[in-house]
Amino acid sequence: MEKHIYPFVLEKAQDSLWNYPLRAPMVEPISILNAQNRVLGEDLYAPHSLPPFDRSPLDGYALRGEDSLGASKKNPKVLTVVDRIPAGHIGRRELQAGECARIFTGAPIPLGANAVLRQEDTEPEGETVRFLSEVTPGANISRKGEDVVAGEPILTRGTMIGPAELAILSALGMDPVPCYARPKVAILSTGDEIVELTSPLTPGKIFNSNMYLIAGYVSRDGGEPILLGSVHDKEELIQARIQEGLAQADLILTTGGVSVGDYDVVKEVHHELGAKRLFAKLDIKPGTPMTASGLGEKLLIGLSGNPGAAAVTYELTVRTLLRNWAGRKDSQLSKVRARLTEGFGKTSGQRRFLRGRIDWVNGEYRLSFTGKQNPGVMKSLLACNCLVEVPPQKRWMSDDWVEAILL
Amino acid sequence: MEKHIYPFVLEKAQDSLWNYPLRAPMVEPISILNAQNRVLGEDLYAPHSLPPFDRSPLDGYALRGEDSLGASKKNPKVLTVVDRIPAGHIGRRELQAGECARIFTGAPIPLGANAVLRQEDTEPEGETVRFLSEVTPGANISRKGEDVVAGEPILTRGTMIGPAELAILSALGMDPVPCYARPKVAILSTGDEIVELTSPLTPGKIFNSNMYLIAGYVSRDGGEPILLGSVHDKEELIQARIQEGLAQADLILTTGGVSVGDYDVVKEVHHELGAKRLFAKLDIKPGTPMTASGLGEKLLIGLSGNPGAAAVTYELTVRTLLRNWAGRKDSQLSKVRARLTEGFGKTSGQRRFLRGRIDWVNGEYRLSFTGKQNPGVMKSLLACNCLVEVPPQKRWMSDDWVEAILL
Repeated sequence: MEKHIYPFVLEKAQDSLWNYPLRAPMVEPISILNAQNRVLGEDLYAPHSLPPFDRSPLDGYALRGEDSLGASKKNPKVLTVVDRIPAGHIGRRELQAGECARIFTGAPIPLGANAVLRQEDTEPEGETVRFLSEVTPGANISRKGEDVVAGEPILTRGTMIGPAELAILSALGMDPVPCYARPKVAILSTGDEIVELTSPLTPGKIFNSNMYLIAGYVSRDGGEPILLGSVHDKEELIQARIQEGLAQADLILTTGGVSVGDYDVVKEVHHELGAKRLFAKLDIKPGTPMTASGLGEKLLIGLSGNPGAAAVTYELTVRTLLRNWAGRKDSQLSKVRARLTEGFGKTSGQRRFLRGRIDWVNGEYRLSFTGKQNPGVMKSLLACNCLVEVPPQKRWMSDDWVEAILL
Repeated sequence: MEKHIYPFVLEKAQDSLWNYPLRAPMVEPISILNAQNRVLGEDLYAPHSLPPFDRSPLDGYALRGEDSLGASKKNPKVLTVVDRIPAGHIGRRELQAGECARIFTGAPIPLGANAVLRQEDTEPEGETVRFLSEVTPGANISRKGEDVVAGEPILTRGTMIGPAELAILSALGMDPVPCYARPKVAILSTGDEIVELTSPLTPGKIFNSNMYLIAGYVSRDGGEPILLGSVHDKEELIQARIQEGLAQADLILTTGGVSVGDYDVVKEVHHELGAKRLFAKLDIKPGTPMTASGLGEKLLIGLSGNPGAAAVTYELTVRTLLRNWAGRKDSQLSKVRARLTEGFGKTSGQRRFLRGRIDWVNGEYRLSFTGKQNPGVMKSLLACNCLVEVPPQKRWMSDDWVEAILL
């Protein structure tokens, strides 16, 4: 049993995880109906232009603009209506001088025409129409390629697909959509005290909640959680379950068993499995007990069994690892400046990360702590939308400006 | 055909939609495995405390604190170890004066003990242990209910379930979870020019993209989209498809056919169906053409066929309507202050909403427009994460401070 493990600086731990050579996810074709919140696996180029043809943005008459020059209410110009082009239809023939075509929003501009006059400025009269104003050549035409030009790069690899991306993809007929496969992540809770939700809560036991916490994060971050349940603090049992996970996933997240006690066997299990240690302790509170080991293209990560600590270290290390791995562009934690509504006076020799919440109030972000900050506390995760670092020996005072790490 | 419809002020249109008496969604039991991103349908109270019992937050020895008073390295106190309590197990007996129990993180404090001394401050010696420091009664005990007290309100109706909520729910054994059923929303694109993605794109045609855009929004906002495809601009065809939608959903969103042309028949269809008009035109750009009608407990909403306009009006009106209806607390649009990286000099007699993007740069939000703002343009939706209002006749200059409406 190693009793004295040198704590790893958080940033070094992040580097070692974020640069670990995990196997890149495959790209798979996903029906556009299921593509929302998936990550685009290829750079895409527009197969055609949008709009795909010159079209009318309004209801009116298509004509050669020159034919309307000088037209006014007092001096209307009369043109012959030779065609009628609703949206979805094409003109029957090329317009000649003195001719026009009735046209509707979205309909293609007929050959020979170079402008559209809106119907409000016209008076139909049998097979002719009186133009009450002039329209310059080129006016009121929504040009082919005005939005997207055929061949242009339209969406880049790593883009998370939302409503706007669905609109562009469908407008360009790009179904199915090449998406990264979601990385599989196996999740296991360790501890003799843990029972599954289907069991009665007998004295001394707690329900397995870390698995649901971590699975929630994994789903949010683009992974596919594989739930391994819970296992007692026995080296051979944990090892067998991790091996079960390794058969299905390249990242194994366990909680518990990473401290320095007699029952903290996760580090030993990593070693027994032949994995190479990246680090075994962090320099932060909560979450000092955290261990990570590499096994070829696979990673084994042991988080604290305390939910608050597991959450904070997940957010500071695994979140970015997983989003990177899933191909996402939004993998780096971002920060905003916020003003504290309250102080935090408990100093520590270690760096500390507090759970907080920012809200925009009167032109600035105000940051409140979300409750008890003990590693074992869960409730302060509930409204939490950011973390705040407290450097060693530092006290935060109410109204101090801090950097909020957005979650 | 009504040619002159008085435009509704946006805020009045919002009111009429947001206060429309739609049928409240049912509450249904959802397995905790599927509860992520669902909306909690009931206020929940903790069925038991967390932690459920007094427990040790570290590895050490449980004792009567009084027995350690005066202990130091120079003057250790010796106690008899009468029990060993790993996590998940309970002490075999009540401790008497002079006795202690080996205890591990997460294990229940045995009867008779009122403190835990960490193992680092002890020296085991056969069946006794030397205490090298004193520990005050009450120290190092993680108290039953320290996190959550049995009976306390723990999650309120309308909470979106994320990782932290999953953790609390599972820790409390609350599976299945009472969630609101997702409101069903039927979505239909109208227009002779529209073809489905499975058809070839023949001249004059465009792919049905509005349905995917709107379905993306509906999913994001907690609805369940029912895809009705597309239909030509014929009153009887549109009516039949809307009726098909009404058989399955209480909210029908159509795109197209809401302007004032010969083919703009959606308003007439609403009327034919017996629905009562709420409004038929908005005072904003893009998105002037928008119509909404109420039919008993159902709503029919016609958005513009132009994707930029459909998106902006959806975000300003339907988004909040749907989130409200889905029971969500985060239904109101929120705003932050941002500084423009560029101006917008094109004035209009109407209020205008521009598509933009904010990013946090050097202590403030900077806002850029995302490209062409024409109602028919889709590409400027891609990076868009906010809208900015431009009042009538107003010009925005670079470095102006504006309110960004967050999307």
